[in-house]
Parts: sequence; structure tokens; C-alpha cells
Amino acid sequence: MNESRIKHAAYLDKIQTPEQASKIIKHEDVLGVSGFTKAGDSKSVLPKVAERARHEKLKVTVLSGASLGYDTDADLAKNGALYKRMPFQADPTLRSSINNHDVLYVDQHLGQTADMLQSLDSFKIDVAIIEAASITKDGYIIPTTSVGNSPIFTEKAEKIIIEINTTFPESMAGIHDIKLLKKQPNREIIPVTHSDTRIGEPYIKINPEKVAAIVFTKVPDCPAVISSPDEKTTAISNHILNFLEKEVHEGRLTESLLPLQAGIGKTANAILSGFKNSPFKNLTMYSEVLQDSTFELFDSGKLLFASASSITVTEDCSKNIFNNFDKYKDKLLLRPQNISNAAEVIKRLGVIGINTAIEFDIYGNVNSTHITGTHMMNGIGGSGDFARNGYLSIFACPSISKEGRISHIVPMVSHTDHTEHDIDILVTEQGLADIRGLAPVERAQVIIKNCVHPMYKDQLLEYFNDAYKLGGHTPHDLEKAFSWHMALKTHGSMKTPELIYN
Amino acid sequence: MNESRIKHAAYLDKIQTPEQASKIIKHEDVLGVSGFTKAGDSKSVLPKVAERARHEKLKVTVLSGASLGYDTDADLAKNGALYKRMPFQADPTLRSSINNHDVLYVDQHLGQTADMLQSLDSFKIDVAIIEAASITKDGYIIPTTSVGNSPIFTEKAEKIIIEINTTFPESMAGIHDIKLLKKQPNREIIPVTHSDTRIGEPYIKINPEKVAAIVFTKVPDCPAVISSPDEKTTAISNHILNFLEKEVHEGRLTESLLPLQAGIGKTANAILSGFKNSPFKNLTMYSEVLQDSTFELFDSGKLLFASASSITVTEDCSKNIFNNFDKYKDKLLLRPQNISNAAEVIKRLGVIGINTAIEFDIYGNVNSTHITGTHMMNGIGGSGDFARNGYLSIFACPSISKEGRISHIVPMVSHTDHTEHDIDILVTEQGLADIRGLAPVERAQVIIKNCVHPMYKDQLLEYFNDAYKLGGHTPHDLEKAFSWHMALKTHGSMKTPELIYN
Repeated sequence: MNESRIKHAAYLDKIQTPEQASKIIKHEDVLGVSGFTKAGDSKSVLPKVAERARHEKLKVTVLSGASLGYDTDADLAKNGALYKRMPFQADPTLRSSINNHDVLYVDQHLGQTADMLQSLDSFKIDVAIIEAASITKDGYIIPTTSVGNSPIFTEKAEKIIIEINTTFPESMAGIHDIKLLKKQPNREIIPVTHSDTRIGEPYIKINPEKVAAIVFTKVPDCPAVISSPDEKTTAISNHILNFLEKEVHEGRLTESLLPLQAGIGKTANAILSGFKNSPFKNLTMYSEVLQDSTFELFDSGKLLFASASSITVTEDCSKNIFNNFDKYKDKLLLRPQNISNAAEVIKRLGVIGINTAIEFDIYGNVNSTHITGTHMMNGIGGSGDFARNGYLSIFACPSISKEGRISHIVPMVSHTDHTEHDIDILVTEQGLADIRGLAPVERAQVIIKNCVHPMYKDQLLEYFNDAYKLGGHTPHDLEKAFSWHMALKTHGSMKTPELIYN
Repeated sequence: MNESRIKHAAYLDKIQTPEQASKIIKHEDVLGVSGFTKAGDSKSVLPKVAERARHEKLKVTVLSGASLGYDTDADLAKNGALYKRMPFQADPTLRSSINNHDVLYVDQHLGQTADMLQSLDSFKIDVAIIEAASITKDGYIIPTTSVGNSPIFTEKAEKIIIEINTTFPESMAGIHDIKLLKKQPNREIIPVTHSDTRIGEPYIKINPEKVAAIVFTKVPDCPAVISSPDEKTTAISNHILNFLEKEVHEGRLTESLLPLQAGIGKTANAILSGFKNSPFKNLTMYSEVLQDSTFELFDSGKLLFASASSITVTEDCSKNIFNNFDKYKDKLLLRPQNISNAAEVIKRLGVIGINTAIEFDIYGNVNSTHITGTHMMNGIGGSGDFARNGYLSIFACPSISKEGRISHIVPMVSHTDHTEHDIDILVTEQGLADIRGLAPVERAQVIIKNCVHPMYKDQLLEYFNDAYKLGGHTPHDLEKAFSWHMALKTHGSMKTPELIYN
């Protein structure tokens, strides 16, 4: 415990143990919890809620920023504590519960949850559980490594539990820029004109009377585990860098490009790492999550500034950041996710959005969420917020996986998260397809030529040519459109669709 | 001819006949032409281009605002004059050419074409052909009934042909609000905070030296033909009005609602007409096209102001407007389509978007463009711009058509234009489904219960229940997902999918 982190005296008699605080939560409550891609989530109270559910009837709806760390989501799911979960998750146990219909899941654009909560009062928030680095003298919250949806949760919540995490330095104060947007018709202009524009306050302003408990925790953020770039992800990165160099060469971009966004995970991290050895300079980021690669780019002098809603890094990277916080502090801003992911700002700044796909099809539609069209992987996250509003919308994935039993380019995606209207660039380790301004049949040709693995090229061309003969602006043979997915399900490989459709 | 409409003396010796002016266009040129949903298009020069192509080798790319009037698109297609067409069309002959692969078609969000042209210089514009009501003393263009993409076309074009239409009153000057947005990283805030906010100039500022020809025309806008509301469209309208009344009653909206947008066509027009007899008042519109219903709402005193990119009305309505122009002039603004359809403004104002679907599925995905997944109908238009950024995203269609041989609610849409993430309300004459905040399996139940025609209810429930047993967050049986569409193709009715999958 470190009571000096609480500058608001009236809170001192609200200090409780995580177990005590967890009892504030009641059966059928709706919880709004901090946490975005494992950063800044509740490490003590919410796990205690999960534990309580093992012994008593306790089923709640949990809204977060994005995914939570450690086994919190897994334990909530395993113990039957979840009625509904939104807007994002990335936990294998919870994923199973969702796909088995044990938990209802609302997969939502990360930039739009706050708006939904403002317009739809049937989603009341009973309790907000928010991680803090400290509390100001007015009782306001200084968040930790993420802002997420915490401002709207605390605004709507009847009660607030604050979880002070003493593993973060108090000097984090100042890296957050927080503004709660008003509901329409009073919605204001979001005056962010550069990655580093500040428009709000460095704290989450709350009503101190709502604070029901304050707890302390010493559990650090669940560290990200990121594999190093490999041959495939390096090839993808190089294709993107070469493409961007060409754009600069042809005068469409300058050598500082436009603000970059990259999704989470190994591929996105590898792509961003690649910029270290690129000819670009004075880069900026306007993203939703900052991974290790962001700090590599700071260290290499390539990156001037990064704005996001969370910092999700490996253990080593975390130590480096917080042991050298002065070095990074002025180069970072963390914003609420409805501002980091705001259509208005992404469009105005001209963000170059780089996200990963589960699969894409010959016409440029992208599936980011569902395995074989039915089973949820993680969720759409912020990919849609950036893909549709960015200056360039880039989606990447390997051309094949599982020793070639899966082709990630298919005749028709089994679930559509990003439509043909919103995709500019598709890239695999095989190459890059620039489909801007192309009609569907033109797109099919460049995608098959540039992105598809050689072992699937003829098979995909055959599908396209046969479908083309049937006519139509977007040629398909509906009988065979999912034959690759069905072959994978029933015969274990997409190389055998003839077993399905013959 | 009425030379007094040309206030810029240097243009007077550029007056040509439409036939002469059409010769400025060369084989393989890219044309940027005015016109949005048949309003404000070229009635003399572009038809002459189509005519030329009957006798000589002349194939061009045509970019417009949206659809063109009369048979212009049909004649261009029929005479083989079109290499590529974008971003929208609604002509049966051109539609056939697109589906037969005679014309390449890029179906694009109407709000995004200008951005694409700014970022992608491979789309140079050789000649812009722009309809005008008059020309200012500086040589700038006062448009007629649409603004569309004309500002970006004239900015990028090497040559400009101005077509002065003397059927419109010169007093139209003043209803346009035109601003050309800068390319990123210099893109400015779009400071529209209300439907009636003016941010630009009443003319399209052009470089007079680019003007290659000026022609006169006396052909009025191709009139809209709109059938009166019938039983089905009235039922749809009533469901929407009842829903909005409930939202007001429960305190989520006020009686002046939020700015309305409605797509084009019979259903959208009927829905909007329905507001005449509603309890709402002091309404506003922030839309892309204004139909007869807008003027009915003005006349009934319900509507205060309407902003859009075009006015597309019937012959009678047109006469009424231009014979009583003073009555309407101060209540109207026409904007470039990248501002009428700007994500930034639509989100800020909280537009209630009402658009029509070709079909939707049990999980709330919407197909706006493709018949049986392959054949282009018209295009996505602005429906996506409004659906994803609006305060409420409403899609409407009849539950069945062709005496019940087609159900417009299907197991899986055969083409996805609007994903499950972007839809709030689905409505047919049967009823309305409010799917906000619902998980896929919850959505399926409310959609089947409220929107599906009784003759398809059991059949759709059977699909859902069978798929549910297979598991997954979004249950589907990929083998049967398109069986309804295949049954329609091969047996003429969706009532017979068992012929396909048994």
C-alpha cells in the first residue's frame, strides 16, 4: 500500500482489500472495466469477481476497452461469471465459451462502444473497475498503460472501484489526454490535427461520490509475448516498405509518410519494426496500441511521436520504458479509444492503417474475425475504424499455413468484416496487390498474381475463370464459393475442394 | 443562348455547340462529369460523346458524382464508349454491360471518390464536363441541382467544358456551399456543426485558363419517377415512426430527433413522407439527395432545413420548387459529396440514416448491391457513409417479392456491403428488429421473429436451429448458406432450397 498515491483525502477511508471490493458487484450487474490489449486492466478486483462466481450465483456483463490480461477473461468464462462480453476479447478459454454459446459476445468496432453507451441507455453500467497510477487532489483518476473506454464507463457507472497499481511510476501522470465527448446533438468537433495535439485533461474526471472502494495492487501488466520477425513476416514487411518507397518516389507521399497505425500481434509488430531500416524519417503514429516496435522506432530515431489508447509491450520492453520514462514521456499520448479510433481524426490525419487478416478473397473482401465463417477468433478490434477512414488501408497475412492445408486467399471470404469498398492494399509474403481504383475482375487478377501461394494459384485461377463464364460484375459460383472451407472442415485441406463439389 | 449568364467576358469567345465541344474529348480520356442521382448532369455534351462513339473509336473512363439522367449512361454503354465507370450508376443498359464484362465498374462509397482522386494521381482527369446555372465575373461556376464531385474534377482536370443550362433560374446562385478540402497532411477540420452551417463559397472556384468550351443547353433535369407510397412502404414507414416515437418517449431522442438522411427510391421517399403526419417537429436533414418528400415536409412545416449534394424530384415537384424558389432558397444547401457524406460530419451531427437493402441476413449483414451475389444492381452509393457513421443506422426492404418467390431475409447475404457491426435497425413491412448491443444469436431470433414473412419464418428458423447445433459464435452451415439463392436461380423460388441441399 502506498497511500501517498491518493491525493484526495476523502478517499482514504474507502480503501478495501480486493476481496472486499469485489463484493460490491452483484449478480446481473453490468461492469465497465479498464484494460485495452492486456494493458491497464484490473488485476485484483476482477479476478476476485471470477473467483466468487465459482462458489455463488454471479453472472455479469463485462464491457472493457479491449482484451484483458492474464487469465481474467478465462476465469470469468470458466466459472460461468459471464452473461455477455463486449467489445473485444482474445482469450482461448473465453473464445471456446463464446463459440459454444455459453457466453454472448458483441464484437464491436473499438471506436464505437462509447457512442453506443451514450445513445443506448439500456446498457447502464452498474460498476466501473478502473486501474489507476494515482488519484489527484480532486479525486480524479490518473490511468496507467491504457485509457480505453474508462472515461465513458466512469461517467455512466453508478459505482466506481479504483485499483491503484503501484508497479507503475507516479510519473506516468501527464501522458494521458482525456476528453469525454458530448452526446449528439451537442457533439463537439474533435480538434486533433496532429498525432500530438492535446485536447483534454491528463486525468479522468469523475464524481468522487461514486467511488465505492479503492484497492491497491502490485501486479504488473500481463506482458506481451511477441515472436521475433521470421522469414514470412519480414517478407511482408519488405513488400509494404517497397510499396511505400514507390509512393514517395512518385510524389504521392513524403519521406515522413503519414501517421502510421498497426494492429496487434507478430505480423503487425514485424512490419513496424521494418521501418527501422527504411529510408523514411520523422515518422509519427496515430494508432490504438503501441507495441515493442514503437519503442524500437523511437530508439532508432525514426519516430517522432506516437498517439494510441494503450501500451502493450514485452517484459523487457516494459522495464526499458519505465526505467527510462523521461526519455519517452514527451513522445507519447494515450487517448480514449473513441478518440484514438475516431473516424474524424483518422480521415483528417490520413492514417496509413496496417492490419492483419484471417483470410481475404479474390475481390478484396477481408475476414478478420471468424474461422470458417462461424467460429470467433478474437474480434474486429479497431481494424475497421482505421481501414475505412485511413489514407491507405493495408491488410496482411501469410499466403498459406498448416503446411499448405490452408490458403488464406480464398474464392469468397466465409465472413466479411471489411468490404471490397474499403481495401487499398493486400499483402502476403508472396507479394503485394494494389487494388485502388480497380473493378472486381481486375482485382481478382492482381490478387491471384501477386498474393497467392504457388500451390494454390492454379486452383484459384480455375475458380475465377469458371465463375467469370457465369457472368456478373463480381463473378462467383455460389455452389463452390465455400468449397475450400468445406474441404478443410471435412478433409483437412483446402487443396481438395473437388471432393466437395464433384 | 443567354450570354448574360456569363459574367466573365473572356469566356464569351469560348462558346461552342455541344457537338463542337464534344470533340475536345479524345480516345482513352478520363472524364469527370457533374451529375448526382440524375440531377445537374451534362445533357448535351456527354450525349454527343456517346453519339461520336457510334461512328469512331472512342472509349473513355467516366467518373461522375453518382447516376446520370436520361439515356446518357445507356448510350455510352451501348455505343461502346465506356472503358471504366465510377463511382455509381443506376441504368439498366449500363448495368447489363457491367455484368457482361463489357464495362469495368468501380462501385465506391460516394463520400470517398474525391479522397481517392487526391491520393491517387494515376486517376488523372483529362476533361471535366460541368453543368452550370451561370458563371461569375471571375469565371467561377454556379452549379445547378447538384454539386457532387465537380469541385475535385475541375481542380484536377486539364480542360473544363461548362454546360450552361438555361432551364434553371439564375437565382439558384447562393444555395451551394463549396469547399475543396486539402490533401493530407494538410487536411483541415470540416467545421460543419449543424445542417445549415456554411463553410465555403457559393461557386466552384476554377482556373479560367482551363476552360476549353462553353455550351448552352435547354434540357431540364431528367425527372424522377416515384410511385406513391403503397401498403408495404407505408407499413415500413409506420414501423420506423413508431420506433422513433418510442426513442423519444424513453428520453433517448428529442421530438426534433437528429438530422435525417434517406436514400433514393420509392421506399426511402415513402418513409420520409410518413414524417408529415408524425408528432415530430423542427426536423432537419443532412442527406445526400433530396426527393419530393423533402419538399412535402417543408410545406407541412415539419422540416426546418435540408443539406444534401443534389435535388432529384419529379416534374411536378420541380415546377413547384423553381416557381416558388424564394420560399425554399433559405432552407437548402447543396454541398460537395465528400462533405455531405463526410464521416466526420455524419458522426458529429448524429445523423439518422435510413437506407434500403436488397437483402439482409439473420445476423444483420446487409447486401445493397449484388443480385444473388454476382450481378450488380446499382451500387453502394452513400449508404455506407451514413450507415457506419450515423447515430442510428436503419435498413429497410420488403420481406418478400415476386409473389413470395424471393425472401429478402436470407440465411447468409450473398454479398456483404454493410457488416453486422454497422447495423442498428432492420425493418420490413412485417416489423422492426432493434439489434443494437445484441450478439449474433440474439439478433437472429429478433430478426426472424419481427422481420421475416410468415411464409419463410419456419424455413429460416430451421436453418438457424440446424446451424446452431453445429456451434460457433455466428452459426452457419456453409453447405446450405446459399441454398436459397441457388434454389431461386435453378428452380425459380427460395421456397425450395431442399431441392438444392438434399
